[in-house]
Amino acid sequence: MLKILVLHGPNLNLLGLREPDVYGRRTLADINLALEQEAADNQLHFVQSNNEGVLIDAIHEAREWAAGILFNPGAYTHTSYALRDAIAAVGLPCVEVHLSNIHAREDFRRKSVVAPVCLGQINGFGWRSYALGLQALLDHLAGEES
Amino acid sequence: MLKILVLHGPNLNLLGLREPDVYGRRTLADINLALEQEAADNQLHFVQSNNEGVLIDAIHEAREWAAGILFNPGAYTHTSYALRDAIAAVGLPCVEVHLSNIHAREDFRRKSVVAPVCLGQINGFGWRSYALGLQALLDHLAGEES
Amino acid sequence: MLKILVLHGPNLNLLGLREPDVYGRRTLADINLALEQEAADNQLHFVQSNNEGVLIDAIHEAREWAAGILFNPGAYTHTSYALRDAIAAVGLPCVEVHLSNIHAREDFRRKSVVAPVCLGQINGFGWRSYALGLQALLDHLAGEES
Amino acid sequence: MLKILVLHGPNLNLLGLREPDVYGRRTLADINLALEQEAADNQLHFVQSNNEGVLIDAIHEAREWAAGILFNPGAYTHTSYALRDAIAAVGLPCVEVHLSNIHAREDFRRKSVVAPVCLGQINGFGWRSYALGLQALLDHLAGEES
Amino acid sequence: MLKILVLHGPNLNLLGLREPDVYGRRTLADINLALEQEAADNQLHFVQSNNEGVLIDAIHEAREWAAGILFNPGAYTHTSYALRDAIAAVGLPCVEVHLSNIHAREDFRRKSVVAPVCLGQINGFGWRSYALGLQALLDHLAGEES
Amino acid sequence: MLKILVLHGPNLNLLGLREPDVYGRRTLADINLALEQEAADNQLHFVQSNNEGVLIDAIHEAREWAAGILFNPGAYTHTSYALRDAIAAVGLPCVEVHLSNIHAREDFRRKSVVAPVCLGQINGFGWRSYALGLQALLDHLAGEES
Amino acid sequence: MLKILVLHGPNLNLLGLREPDVYGRRTLADINLALEQEAADNQLHFVQSNNEGVLIDAIHEAREWAAGILFNPGAYTHTSYALRDAIAAVGLPCVEVHLSNIHAREDFRRKSVVAPVCLGQINGFGWRSYALGLQALLDHLAGEES
Amino acid sequence: MLKILVLHGPNLNLLGLREPDVYGRRTLADINLALEQEAADNQLHFVQSNNEGVLIDAIHEAREWAAGILFNPGAYTHTSYALRDAIAAVGLPCVEVHLSNIHAREDFRRKSVVAPVCLGQINGFGWRSYALGLQALLDHLAGEES
Amino acid sequence: MLKILVLHGPNLNLLGLREPDVYGRRTLADINLALEQEAADNQLHFVQSNNEGVLIDAIHEAREWAAGILFNPGAYTHTSYALRDAIAAVGLPCVEVHLSNIHAREDFRRKSVVAPVCLGQINGFGWRSYALGLQALLDHLAGEES
Amino acid sequence: MLKILVLHGPNLNLLGLREPDVYGRRTLADINLALEQEAADNQLHFVQSNNEGVLIDAIHEAREWAAGILFNPGAYTHTSYALRDAIAAVGLPCVEVHLSNIHAREDFRRKSVVAPVCLGQINGFGWRSYALGLQALLDHLAGEES
Amino acid sequence: MLKILVLHGPNLNLLGLREPDVYGRRTLADINLALEQEAADNQLHFVQSNNEGVLIDAIHEAREWAAGILFNPGAYTHTSYALRDAIAAVGLPCVEVHLSNIHAREDFRRKSVVAPVCLGQINGFGWRSYALGLQALLDHLAGEES
Amino acid sequence: MLKILVLHGPNLNLLGLREPDVYGRRTLADINLALEQEAADNQLHFVQSNNEGVLIDAIHEAREWAAGILFNPGAYTHTSYALRDAIAAVGLPCVEVHLSNIHAREDFRRKSVVAPVCLGQINGFGWRSYALGLQALLDHLAGEES
Repeated sequence: MLKILVLHGPNLNLLGLREPDVYGRRTLADINLALEQEAADNQLHFVQSNNEGVLIDAIHEAREWAAGILFNPGAYTHTSYALRDAIAAVGLPCVEVHLSNIHAREDFRRKSVVAPVCLGQINGFGWRSYALGLQALLDHLAGEES
Repeated sequence: MLKILVLHGPNLNLLGLREPDVYGRRTLADINLALEQEAADNQLHFVQSNNEGVLIDAIHEAREWAAGILFNPGAYTHTSYALRDAIAAVGLPCVEVHLSNIHAREDFRRKSVVAPVCLGQINGFGWRSYALGLQALLDHLAGEES
Repeated sequence: MLKILVLHGPNLNLLGLREPDVYGRRTLADINLALEQEAADNQLHFVQSNNEGVLIDAIHEAREWAAGILFNPGAYTHTSYALRDAIAAVGLPCVEVHLSNIHAREDFRRKSVVAPVCLGQINGFGWRSYALGLQALLDHLAGEES
Repeated sequence: MLKILVLHGPNLNLLGLREPDVYGRRTLADINLALEQEAADNQLHFVQSNNEGVLIDAIHEAREWAAGILFNPGAYTHTSYALRDAIAAVGLPCVEVHLSNIHAREDFRRKSVVAPVCLGQINGFGWRSYALGLQALLDHLAGEES
Repeated sequence: MLKILVLHGPNLNLLGLREPDVYGRRTLADINLALEQEAADNQLHFVQSNNEGVLIDAIHEAREWAAGILFNPGAYTHTSYALRDAIAAVGLPCVEVHLSNIHAREDFRRKSVVAPVCLGQINGFGWRSYALGLQALLDHLAGEES
Repeated sequence: MLKILVLHGPNLNLLGLREPDVYGRRTLADINLALEQEAADNQLHFVQSNNEGVLIDAIHEAREWAAGILFNPGAYTHTSYALRDAIAAVGLPCVEVHLSNIHAREDFRRKSVVAPVCLGQINGFGWRSYALGLQALLDHLAGEES
Repeated sequence: MLKILVLHGPNLNLLGLREPDVYGRRTLADINLALEQEAADNQLHFVQSNNEGVLIDAIHEAREWAAGILFNPGAYTHTSYALRDAIAAVGLPCVEVHLSNIHAREDFRRKSVVAPVCLGQINGFGWRSYALGLQALLDHLAGEES
Repeated sequence: MLKILVLHGPNLNLLGLREPDVYGRRTLADINLALEQEAADNQLHFVQSNNEGVLIDAIHEAREWAAGILFNPGAYTHTSYALRDAIAAVGLPCVEVHLSNIHAREDFRRKSVVAPVCLGQINGFGWRSYALGLQALLDHLAGEES
Repeated sequence: MLKILVLHGPNLNLLGLREPDVYGRRTLADINLALEQEAADNQLHFVQSNNEGVLIDAIHEAREWAAGILFNPGAYTHTSYALRDAIAAVGLPCVEVHLSNIHAREDFRRKSVVAPVCLGQINGFGWRSYALGLQALLDHLAGEES
Repeated sequence: MLKILVLHGPNLNLLGLREPDVYGRRTLADINLALEQEAADNQLHFVQSNNEGVLIDAIHEAREWAAGILFNPGAYTHTSYALRDAIAAVGLPCVEVHLSNIHAREDFRRKSVVAPVCLGQINGFGWRSYALGLQALLDHLAGEES
Repeated sequence: MLKILVLHGPNLNLLGLREPDVYGRRTLADINLALEQEAADNQLHFVQSNNEGVLIDAIHEAREWAAGILFNPGAYTHTSYALRDAIAAVGLPCVEVHLSNIHAREDFRRKSVVAPVCLGQINGFGWRSYALGLQALLDHLAGEES
Repeated sequence: MLKILVLHGPNLNLLGLREPDVYGRRTLADINLALEQEAADNQLHFVQSNNEGVLIDAIHEAREWAAGILFNPGAYTHTSYALRDAIAAVGLPCVEVHLSNIHAREDFRRKSVVAPVCLGQINGFGWRSYALGLQALLDHLAGEES
């Protein structure tokens, strides 16, 4: 049984309410519930914040208890070197996920400054990006040869 | 039951032999076999070529028989507008996968010119990127809300 | 009668104290008072924060009660894609204002990443930028053809 | 009582006829009339030209009689250093206005080469940008602290 | 029978006199005459000016009487957003032509800022570029499927 | 009587089937047929390939028999220095054509690396771009002063 | 006796625990203690936060009581114009320090957006950067000619 | 005896009135007078216009009567490829002069698009730049080996 | 006795026929013959293709039998990350050669994307570049200290 | 007791005479004297040259006798890869110092090409930058954990 | 009577011998002689060096005896911030001259890093650039209003 | 019998001592000796300097006696337009050599500003780069067709 931090970045609290054409109709609560069903007997701990500092704190704290991080950094993806340093600092395996295909949108969304310190990136599959990311993280932690 | 084209780009025929530290120890045949096991009763058709034109032809032909494409364009990812146009032309859902985390390597690998015509991108999980991509594609074809 | 969120970004709490040659001698309280006088019988709700996350939260909450937003994002203007996404997510009309002429200063101040999701931008008229912005927003809400 | 030059740049003579979705349905004559009503007992002098040289001449002549300039440079906004030099040369306060939100359109429209010699910029509010700009200019000339 | 505006930009009045190695030996009058012979019973109206404003005016006026525009913007091709806006504003089909192959010369000549509002571009065939452009425009107006 | 190589690059085999809004409804066979009708008693030889190497080979072989080349390089337009070198090497007059207005689409399509070794470029007129290009090429070969 | 704000930016709370090869083995508490010993009878007030807004607030408050600021902005160094404006607004002398040689690492770390409003910058000497920075600040406050 | 066109670009009609710190206190009439005194028995013909088209026309006409051109293109220096083409087209020797040191001011002033078709450039010596330029032009025309 | 793959990229089959001023008058057969004479008792295997995929295949196969590769990638030098990956994948020492001085020609020819995976680069000496490259490769294989 | 090379780059011989507002009023001799007082019983050897080659030679010679280098490269900081290679070649610890805050001046001064081969950088504290740099270097040599 | 330093940068010692088509047929001695004749009773002191350091030294020494500097920095024009600092440091009026029109040659020659600290620049008139520059400098020193 | 200048740029005097992993273990004297053995009865003259000016002087002097130049410009490769002009000025054939593969290292090392005036470039083969370069130069001088 593994403990995983599922970290949601800015504006994701509005999921389901916000631009459903782009982001789908499920709320964040729906997604968290669905992820728990996919997590089998592993434990997921959910944090959402619009505040970069709070997200950094959550990553730091995960150092004490988590086996890995599933992270959707939202718009901080493109600018936050502080989040990047936080992930590098705690040394936990981290999977980066995005609801939309960030490489098919505005130019500024194509660059992820956190990607270089993550295992990999999954984007474009709506809430399923989280589900696939969770599976990728659990596989990795299970020592599955990649 | 769905038919899926699994398309492998340049140099992927050397998998398992080539730089195992970066790309893992499984051969392409191993990966294809493993994917078939994950495909349940769906049918996978495998094509690998080092030749951009042959890859385009394979995409064109898929228009006649396939429900979707699982594609690792290898190094053509970064330059082939012709592959991008081919995917757009046939109008099939396409999932882009990469063995390594292309956003954590040389600058030139961070840009995918095919991404804007794909559903989404999965990278960094070794051969598991294929497995996750197949699942994402099948979910999409099953009408799973994303 | 309309309810408007007047949102002040980082460092604006020091107005009147800070570089009066550039930003004028009125304090933020002075400006808020003056705006209320210009608002006629509409209601203004004022929020100032130096914290990007708090500003995002305020925008999110405005979704429940406000008819529009009058926003001076301060230095976050130039980098905060998270604020941009927040404005887009709540779907409220937003007018961007700046005390100084941001297009006549350092290069980095010439680019606003929030502008593409705002109705328009007013800058360079000191505290009067707010007054003009409020008028523009009320005109818009009154269905004034533009 | 103040005299103001209201200067309209290229293609603005087609207002109301041209792309009403972007620029609104009022003609230039309508706008001029509406501005006169907002000008109280101040005098407005209107000039429109598609010719950069004629616009420069108008600015030069304003030096003799005008207290300020309300200027929509149209597409010359983005390239005309000659207009910029003209404004700097006559030393009159100048307010830059645009009908559309130039920061939300094509990249080339985001840069104003005249902005650095203007008091401020107002854009995105259709013909109301002119009205707000006139008010900003009159406030400035009235010595209103900004 | 259709009426077409044939619009010649700056320095084209010197054709035949100016750098014949690059631009050929025919004068502008020769070209106009030759075009009339190719126009069958359609009517061509010719305007040449070195003045950006006069060219814009001619485009505006064409709105009243012309079915389309055949345009060689000369050196304004590379900088005149005002001409681009004029073409977009009148909404007439416009074909862009150039005597020389602008994509084979100095870097600054490779970019046309008017191209995005034209039907297409023909360049590199000397005065024949005009003849081909006229044919393209007439085909288009004849409803020829392209 | 002249022999002309008509060379179609990648994805053009899908014409008529592929995105008809962008590329028209005629198939490649239709276009070839129509071109033959416009060719009078000149002979056209048609080659289409999705393979850069095959296109290069066709250009090389044309050196033995053709008087000129009519070439739509498709997406290779923007990247293939090898095709550019092939055209320069055989020294045949080459006219570059495109169905769509490549200067009005994505940025990457605005640059043609083969243009500097071609006579000229025609784009934006659908299949008529080929017809016009053929005429331009035949005029050139007929020694028509340009 | 002088009062100094010693301000630590994001992720510095993990010092000693985080990547000791890069940042050394001392904890933040160790460093603070060592700095107090170097401060003689001057008073140091320590603040660490991962939150940009909290750092701005601390700078604002220092305006009331501090003679200067010793600041390691961590990863905010490279993006936070808000911190830059805060330092400029309070008008206190500020010395920028970094543990590692930021000019010898990734490109993005080479640019400090706060440097232009600081007295100077010291980097590359591990915790000694703080000690040297404190000395530089005290020298400056002592009116030492530089 | 030689005839020279002395051509003054935009805003130079305001010389002496406009920013004397930058451009000196002499009016354009003063400069023309002084130049005539330096011209000995050569004839100078003066043209000033704020209109790019009028400047081009003047260059074209000079083709009929002038031996050379002394040209201060003002702000058109930096953008007018049409003026550049005009100079190249008439084939007269042209000397480019500027009152101020354009290489010591804003970035945009450092690039002259007309320089590549001029003999040389003289800038930074106020009205004396004209006098030196006239001398350079006369020397050149006198066949002085350079 | 060593076996070496001598690999010629696109358009090199036209050597001797193509632009002799730039590339010399020897045919590819001449060069191959001359190289064999310089190879002493080592065995050279020659492959030329205009097809990127065929070149990749040849490199892959060399893995089974060759001691090293002498490679002139022609125009693929500047764009083919797939060839770069192929060389890296097989792990054979590779010497990059060019007939002309690629650093003295067009900008796009100055960048070699395969250089980082080669031992070194020799260019500018016509067919002698091959001869020198062969010698360099044999020296390397002989364990000659470099 | 340690021997240190104190190396002063171009124009530093004019210190005290040159722009005292920027660089302070102390001469180079004053600074050297003051540094000796701070050096305790360590030995400082001073070299100043305006000549890049002489500076390189001094670094090379230091290899024979010095424990470290304190270096103000002056304007060579921004361009001299040769000095960078020299420091890397001799392998001595080197501290880079600057009198002024190079990150607060012209853009070209913000980039140091020698920084990547130095321990760290100190700038902005006038002659005190040297004193602090000396202390940093001595601490480093004393094995002070950083 | 004034003393002037005439400073010739790298490769100018070869004048007359080197590329006469570009630089003319006069030797440096010829030019110096001709300049002395133009200098009337002012004294010229000539220095030529290929060594950046020697040029800096000459500028420094001029501080003791010269009224101004006439400087052709040759290829150091484009890179030497050290020469720029030297000119700024001595505070003497300096006129920059070039034999060829540097704005009409390779891109790298268009940028002068010393221009911002010079009075003005004269280029393109062969050895006459020096003569005109000397006159400009003497005018300036004579207090001639510019 | 030919006389050749073998010119070694900055830091090459440290060869064998400096970073042997990158540059090999042979000293410069070793290399010179080995070259002499490869030179047969041709005469080599060796110059090494860390001083750009001295290198220029050596090239100038070679004009009097040498048949060609074998040149390793070291770090001056990337910045010295003065060396480039020197080579162009003397008109001797010059071969550029580098010990390491400069195209496989830091970005700044990939650009050679002297390459456009050299015959060709050889890099990446350690001291053997010199030997191959000498052979290339002698072949060229022997009139060997390239």
